[in-house]
Amino acid sequence: MQINAAEIRSAQAQLAMTPVAVRNRALVEFSRLLKKNAAEVLRANGVDVRAAQRAQLTSAFLDRLMLNHKRLEDMAAVLREVASASDPLGRSSKVKTLKNGLKARKITRPLGVIFLIFESRPNVAVESFALALKSGNALILKGGRESAATIKVLEKLMQRALKNVGLQPALLRALRSTDRSGVLQLLGMKKLIDVVIPRGGEALIRFVVSHTEIPVIKNDRGLCHVYVDRAADLKMAVKILINAKMQRPGVCNSAETVLVHQTVAKRFFKLFLTELGRQKKTLEIRACKRSHAALLANQRLAPGLNLRRASPKDWNTEHLELILNAAVVSSAPAAQRHIATYGSRHSEAIVTKSRKTAEAFLNSVDAAAVYWNASTRFTDGHQLGLGGEIGISTQKLHVRGPVGLEALTCQQWVLRGSGQIRI
Amino acid sequence: MQINAAEIRSAQAQLAMTPVAVRNRALVEFSRLLKKNAAEVLRANGVDVRAAQRAQLTSAFLDRLMLNHKRLEDMAAVLREVASASDPLGRSSKVKTLKNGLKARKITRPLGVIFLIFESRPNVAVESFALALKSGNALILKGGRESAATIKVLEKLMQRALKNVGLQPALLRALRSTDRSGVLQLLGMKKLIDVVIPRGGEALIRFVVSHTEIPVIKNDRGLCHVYVDRAADLKMAVKILINAKMQRPGVCNSAETVLVHQTVAKRFFKLFLTELGRQKKTLEIRACKRSHAALLANQRLAPGLNLRRASPKDWNTEHLELILNAAVVSSAPAAQRHIATYGSRHSEAIVTKSRKTAEAFLNSVDAAAVYWNASTRFTDGHQLGLGGEIGISTQKLHVRGPVGLEALTCQQWVLRGSGQIRI
Repeated sequence: MQINAAEIRSAQAQLAMTPVAVRNRALVEFSRLLKKNAAEVLRANGVDVRAAQRAQLTSAFLDRLMLNHKRLEDMAAVLREVASASDPLGRSSKVKTLKNGLKARKITRPLGVIFLIFESRPNVAVESFALALKSGNALILKGGRESAATIKVLEKLMQRALKNVGLQPALLRALRSTDRSGVLQLLGMKKLIDVVIPRGGEALIRFVVSHTEIPVIKNDRGLCHVYVDRAADLKMAVKILINAKMQRPGVCNSAETVLVHQTVAKRFFKLFLTELGRQKKTLEIRACKRSHAALLANQRLAPGLNLRRASPKDWNTEHLELILNAAVVSSAPAAQRHIATYGSRHSEAIVTKSRKTAEAFLNSVDAAAVYWNASTRFTDGHQLGLGGEIGISTQKLHVRGPVGLEALTCQQWVLRGSGQIRI
Repeated sequence: MQINAAEIRSAQAQLAMTPVAVRNRALVEFSRLLKKNAAEVLRANGVDVRAAQRAQLTSAFLDRLMLNHKRLEDMAAVLREVASASDPLGRSSKVKTLKNGLKARKITRPLGVIFLIFESRPNVAVESFALALKSGNALILKGGRESAATIKVLEKLMQRALKNVGLQPALLRALRSTDRSGVLQLLGMKKLIDVVIPRGGEALIRFVVSHTEIPVIKNDRGLCHVYVDRAADLKMAVKILINAKMQRPGVCNSAETVLVHQTVAKRFFKLFLTELGRQKKTLEIRACKRSHAALLANQRLAPGLNLRRASPKDWNTEHLELILNAAVVSSAPAAQRHIATYGSRHSEAIVTKSRKTAEAFLNSVDAAAVYWNASTRFTDGHQLGLGGEIGISTQKLHVRGPVGLEALTCQQWVLRGSGQIRI
């Protein structure tokens, strides 16, 4: 790996001063090049996909890796969305005039150089490039090795787009190394890199955090709960739980555990299994003693149900597939205690008609996003109108939840005076 | 060291729900106890000061360690300032209604549990306690061992104040261990601690960052510059430089280096030495070849001047005493390049009458605070009206510059729906 730190820094410093129109033009140009070179991109992606098939990777993995014309169009849509978002740079806070006349304001600036480590999802490279560029940052990408051929072509097109609008190709760099030595080298370059964003499993995140002094935005796991309160609209609860668990089980904002108030547990599980059966869905449930009994009694309603008793480990496991933990709790505070113990501080939902119970939940549950009567699946930069997302932060510093354009900037104090000195 | 994580977490969760009036009352109560027990505090401080004297620590160190009645009154003033600041918790962004009717807003919440490692300055313990408590956080303190006796008494009074207003003493804990094992143990408790704030030298900060997976707010060094432009009001420049360098040389927002445009270098240095002489000040200057010549020619104007040639290391050294680096530069961009190379991204100032040159400087210098025609010494939580400061961040994530009340909170997404699911 060859990283020319001075070249990247100088390209980024230049980008920070570039009008937003130029940054937008680069995104539109990249979108044009993606369309024009679709055949080349899909050919490279085919190489990656066939290798992944030979390696017998899961169908979920293949699905995330694979591109087609529809998905290229989705990428173009993301590029347009980011291009049309308002400029995140140069936003000023209200000017504060100190007693001595010094005028102070905070202005948004780029973070600088971002190092993104991500899984084998080509669309992540495209969206991250768009968000980083729009917010004035240089981006160094390290994707999973299974997408190497695809990323290589995408890198070429992104660099060509930069060049075509007069920006420096050094603003975007994709690492080719397949081992961790190149990553380690970059994690040590604290003068070059301003922030590291690791996406992926816990092992990756621990590796990054313990091998760098550079600030990190963690995209840790999502162990999310849906709590069905005694005062819940049970039909709504069924609908929300099915969506939160089953609409896309492989993502971090999907639910892993349902907690049900003991008063409504029997009725809720009956309704839930009825709906599962009606929709002919397959689901494994790992249940506590009491929920197991309630589910067992209605097992015939859902032929696709695979019912088991939960092991202690399950409450702490991000299944990321069609497996749901189920527990009966004695009260809303008991549900909150369960969430405090096992939740990963990502997204947590309560279903209830009681405003009082809901507000207590919203005010005291410690998570990036808390929901009342809605699915956890909305913790997403596109859904929340952030112009996209480069990841979802599970830490508290800097940004919680989706990492959008604003989170790729920092605030600089700008002070204008007329000779003020401190007394 | 015995840390009861569950007890601290539960105390913090309770504090987060406590009305601001109660948090303020705790600060007022602590202020009352400080006054009532002044004799005990000063006695303990005397023990620390005498030990430091026997150990022949510097007078600057002793000055930071020592308390007296005036300084206790200053502490009380800080407590009143924080108590009268508006509540940083529960502040809501504008509600955003998604197309599906889901109502999203971001609300400020406490960070949680803060671990502050600081030098032997008793006032830091008091101000940090005030800021942490006001923003709903629990605080674990680890001060320099030279202030152990003082901090022990302050801890007792802070805990008593908490108890007297019905809050839990577990919200404040001062570590007694004099070695690093207790610190290491806490740095490993990532389930307990939400953020670590190390104040002190580079060695400490590197130690912390490389021994923890917990997010850190770095209080790194301040290598700040004053650039005197060709279009500067030279009298103003002299006044600003003397203030930035000499008013309090031991702090991070003081200047270490003056950069002077070649066109005005001779005139500036003559004026500067004239003023130094008039004020009968003592200063060591480490000068580049050209500034050395200009200074030498006017040496007689300032009998307190100790003139030397700068070594390459000087440009990169945070002197923190009455030593100033001086360099002549050929242009404003050359000054900016010098700052980009040697600056620590803390506070940087330009003195000029040219708006154009000033704006280019303000827009392109990468530092927490950039100044036009003012001293760098205003990078300070009190000066900027942040209700105080627990440190000064030199990183870009979360907070740049003074870490005040707002920086001790995070933003949580709160979403209220009526059964919304993701499609």
